[in-house]
Amino acid sequence: MSEDKLYAMRHSLAHIMAAAVQRLWPDAKFGVGPVVEHGFYYDIDLGETKISEQQFNKIEKIMRRIIAEKQDFVCTKCPIDDAIQWAKDSHQPYKEELLNDLKRAGTTVAKDLDAAEMGTITESDSALDEVSFYTNGSFKDLCRGPHVANTSEIGAFKLMRVAGAYWRGNEKNPQMQRLYGVAFATQEELDEYLKQLELAKQRDHRKLGKELDLYTTSPLVGVGLPLFTPRGTILRDVVAQYSNQLRQRFGFEKVWTPHITKKDLYETSGHWAKFGEELFLVKSQETSDEMALKPMNCPHHTQIFASQPRSYRDMPVRYLETTTDYRDEKTGELGGLNRVRSLTQDDSHVFCRPDQIEQEINNLLSAAQELYGTIDMKLRVRLSYRDDSDAYLGERELWASAQNQLKSAVEKVGLDYFEQEGEAAFYGPKIDFMATDAIGREHQVATVQLDFVQPQRFGLEYTDRDGNFTTPVMIHCALLGSIERFLSVFIEHTGGWFPFWAAPEQVRILTINDTVLDYVDEITTILSGVTLMQPVKYNEVRFITDIRNESIGKKIREATVVKIPTQIIVGPKDKEQRIVSVRTRAGEEQVTIDQLASYIQNV
Amino acid sequence: MSEDKLYAMRHSLAHIMAAAVQRLWPDAKFGVGPVVEHGFYYDIDLGETKISEQQFNKIEKIMRRIIAEKQDFVCTKCPIDDAIQWAKDSHQPYKEELLNDLKRAGTTVAKDLDAAEMGTITESDSALDEVSFYTNGSFKDLCRGPHVANTSEIGAFKLMRVAGAYWRGNEKNPQMQRLYGVAFATQEELDEYLKQLELAKQRDHRKLGKELDLYTTSPLVGVGLPLFTPRGTILRDVVAQYSNQLRQRFGFEKVWTPHITKKDLYETSGHWAKFGEELFLVKSQETSDEMALKPMNCPHHTQIFASQPRSYRDMPVRYLETTTDYRDEKTGELGGLNRVRSLTQDDSHVFCRPDQIEQEINNLLSAAQELYGTIDMKLRVRLSYRDDSDAYLGERELWASAQNQLKSAVEKVGLDYFEQEGEAAFYGPKIDFMATDAIGREHQVATVQLDFVQPQRFGLEYTDRDGNFTTPVMIHCALLGSIERFLSVFIEHTGGWFPFWAAPEQVRILTINDTVLDYVDEITTILSGVTLMQPVKYNEVRFITDIRNESIGKKIREATVVKIPTQIIVGPKDKEQRIVSVRTRAGEEQVTIDQLASYIQNV
Repeated sequence: MSEDKLYAMRHSLAHIMAAAVQRLWPDAKFGVGPVVEHGFYYDIDLGETKISEQQFNKIEKIMRRIIAEKQDFVCTKCPIDDAIQWAKDSHQPYKEELLNDLKRAGTTVAKDLDAAEMGTITESDSALDEVSFYTNGSFKDLCRGPHVANTSEIGAFKLMRVAGAYWRGNEKNPQMQRLYGVAFATQEELDEYLKQLELAKQRDHRKLGKELDLYTTSPLVGVGLPLFTPRGTILRDVVAQYSNQLRQRFGFEKVWTPHITKKDLYETSGHWAKFGEELFLVKSQETSDEMALKPMNCPHHTQIFASQPRSYRDMPVRYLETTTDYRDEKTGELGGLNRVRSLTQDDSHVFCRPDQIEQEINNLLSAAQELYGTIDMKLRVRLSYRDDSDAYLGERELWASAQNQLKSAVEKVGLDYFEQEGEAAFYGPKIDFMATDAIGREHQVATVQLDFVQPQRFGLEYTDRDGNFTTPVMIHCALLGSIERFLSVFIEHTGGWFPFWAAPEQVRILTINDTVLDYVDEITTILSGVTLMQPVKYNEVRFITDIRNESIGKKIREATVVKIPTQIIVGPKDKEQRIVSVRTRAGEEQVTIDQLASYIQNV
Repeated sequence: MSEDKLYAMRHSLAHIMAAAVQRLWPDAKFGVGPVVEHGFYYDIDLGETKISEQQFNKIEKIMRRIIAEKQDFVCTKCPIDDAIQWAKDSHQPYKEELLNDLKRAGTTVAKDLDAAEMGTITESDSALDEVSFYTNGSFKDLCRGPHVANTSEIGAFKLMRVAGAYWRGNEKNPQMQRLYGVAFATQEELDEYLKQLELAKQRDHRKLGKELDLYTTSPLVGVGLPLFTPRGTILRDVVAQYSNQLRQRFGFEKVWTPHITKKDLYETSGHWAKFGEELFLVKSQETSDEMALKPMNCPHHTQIFASQPRSYRDMPVRYLETTTDYRDEKTGELGGLNRVRSLTQDDSHVFCRPDQIEQEINNLLSAAQELYGTIDMKLRVRLSYRDDSDAYLGERELWASAQNQLKSAVEKVGLDYFEQEGEAAFYGPKIDFMATDAIGREHQVATVQLDFVQPQRFGLEYTDRDGNFTTPVMIHCALLGSIERFLSVFIEHTGGWFPFWAAPEQVRILTINDTVLDYVDEITTILSGVTLMQPVKYNEVRFITDIRNESIGKKIREATVVKIPTQIIVGPKDKEQRIVSVRTRAGEEQVTIDQLASYIQNV
């Protein structure tokens, strides 16, 4: 089914659902009923009556009956004043309000609201003296379409949930009930989607975060400010270590900057004017300094670059810093690790000559490719270019050359890509990385952003071959993005079964009885001597020994609940034969104790 | 010379200096003239006249003349009212004010001011109806003594500097001139002290920080907020890594907490009431949360401990976090790395049962001993106990047991120690570590602090053997203290000649000419393959190759200026004989290329 067809079908289902609701509650007042990802919703005012999930079956049954009635969707047009009269006559005050706004303010209001949610604008925005209606059976709704021709063209659908929603998103307005459904062309597709949803629920990182004891929160500390337990901290550290090592091989050097700064830094960078409202302000009681918590690290890094004279021979200068930024996000948007107020970035900045852009981009692309390849996530990238407008700073020539270098670098490393004009930031073109997880969801992860503006604003310079002072180009890049957000994706992608190198507890040794304790000592001595080198260098093996007087079945169950990737079960036979029985998700295998070190090194 | 004798001599020199000043400026009004470390000062009001360092010679000359006159110091006593009359008659308004205050408020005022600075209190604090004078030659001064008997007993001295100082330290009072001198029993000791001072000046970490490119500051970021360059960041990281590894072997686990929190956390901990003024306040523009930057990490760590039920079998729970705290220090006190507003602590917290205190302290002591031993700093510790007052929280029994365990642990590891009653914090006894640097200065470094109160305030608990909920004891410990402050000590202690393991650039390879480039490749391949394991595990060799077309003399000079500990000089002979010529501060030596890896591993 084409995207357009699917859209029309979901849109029609919103009407069919509204019709069903109207049959059950004839006094229902309707708001807007747009198409959303995977489905549709309708905002409904039922007064004191609350729709419960138990009633979904009944509503769906009526919807199916309407579909079976093979009703046509018929479009009619009428003058806006007639439409207002219709809304009055049929006691639909929300429709009346929308129509009145449309009549009064025309396109202004139409643009003010999300057009998709409106569902009430005629094809041409300027022809607001006339609006369109769609009627199926006895249900008539103000609507710009499009719809399927007949309800028989409807595929598979399911009502999902009901939630409160303020009319027009404004909490001063009445609260309505937003009834959500999903719809697909076929039952198979719907089943697949529901299966995915169930998978996603099982993998929810907030659920796994608790089960695997990765992080916690405290009402005393505040929302969006997770605290990481020892296990979660290992995860944080090992992915950051990997991301850093991937860049250190290209000459990136770690730097360190404080988390606060006088606002002067952001006035110079230009961030104060643009992002002032997202900043946490810091008040010094000792001084009159106006300060802020850093929401990004680039301005701080410019100050380190500026601390020494630089020549063309010193370029590129490459800084790396894993550090926590603070952004004053709306608390309603905070939840789990996906969006937090304390976001730790594996940030890096290259200061380079314009002719060095491609090589530097190439390095960063291959680092990203290796990282996401290692965790089995398929990458594709979006190249965001400028358009022909004057909304961009920096010379057109520099832009053209930089965009070519980006594209050339992407092609050289063989990444899937698509290009979008007009999507660049005003200060430079960029590359966004999208990674697909194990259940098919695509997540925006790393970014590589060129910047022609900040070096100028900070007066950065290097002396070129001819002794002239020249402004460098900056390249911003975070491979993981925010570590917290990356972990939310990584946890859900793996379902908590982290690859061996990343698992907080990699090996658990489970004894069958106490006669093997000396043999366990041999095993732990071997494990203690192993240094893991792939894909992250210099990690010791993280193991725990479970020698409790419990049944081996119970011990295995417990180790499996917390998803220990490698379980070593030690019984008298193992000791006698000097072998090690290893249990992984792939199955069981045995290695001799002499092979254990190299086995673990190559898991 | 005894400490008492030295004290008396320095005190007498303050009078002799004042007498000399009075000879030069008969209208001089005198404030207080106490003994300070290494010497003495006198606060003097000369009206518009400013003493310059150029005049020190002249003043010293007169002082020497007074000394040559072999004047006796004669003590006389008189009623306080007679003394006030004397001050009036001799136009000494500051003395008059002191005497009036003494008369009016007695000991209260005496305690209000630093008694040492007063110099005007008679032996017995209560006998304030009578005060003592000391006279030498024509100079008479209100003074409680003691003094040398005769100016001929004065040893070697030198005037050092003059600085502004408000009368009684209050900026609303007149500004006086504080004239400083140092004095020792012999000229040799004075020379030694001046040499030390010169050494300290050469080692000043602010000077070396710049020369070795370790950190920078930016007026846009603000004072007390240093930014660390790549070289400085290596130093930070390697010492933190060492300090962490020393504790990880005892089961400490890393955790991670955000840098901000709602003030609720500090209201619960009790810090808000005590340290509220030292906090940087954070204002959320999105919420009404009242927040602060964390000035310490213990309250955050309690929340991780509290996130899981704990049993006596789980104890001790040991957390480790190297993280940056923020304290709103007075800007006048900020300078270099010694005192900063962004202080990174290598912090750790143990939550343990009372019977586990000694073992845990023992672990921390041996970690501290190893760390400071490695950098050749002699440690001694102060044991700070409670006194008999009621100013302490927690049961007396627990205190007694804990203090015994501290002392026992200190004795077991064989550290020099002294004990001080009444020096404990109200919430528990502590151990302070003092380390002596290469030029004999003692610095307060690590601290181990017991805490009986915070676990209670946060309601922390574990179930003991009998199933009862019990409050754990907390042990706070930072081995380095603040990393910034530690680095200021470490830089000055080493004079920038960092031990090999800590040096930002450990090896520089200097070529004599271009015929050896292939041989240099062999050498760098070997160095790249080496992982250093002592004293810090898992460091790659940090080397740079200088193949510029410059003279070897110039290359060596440059490498020596930035204090590269190991310089490898590669010439055609080395290549031919397959040897490596190594230049260190200890001298030059040659190893075969086959020995290079093991040589570097054991530097």
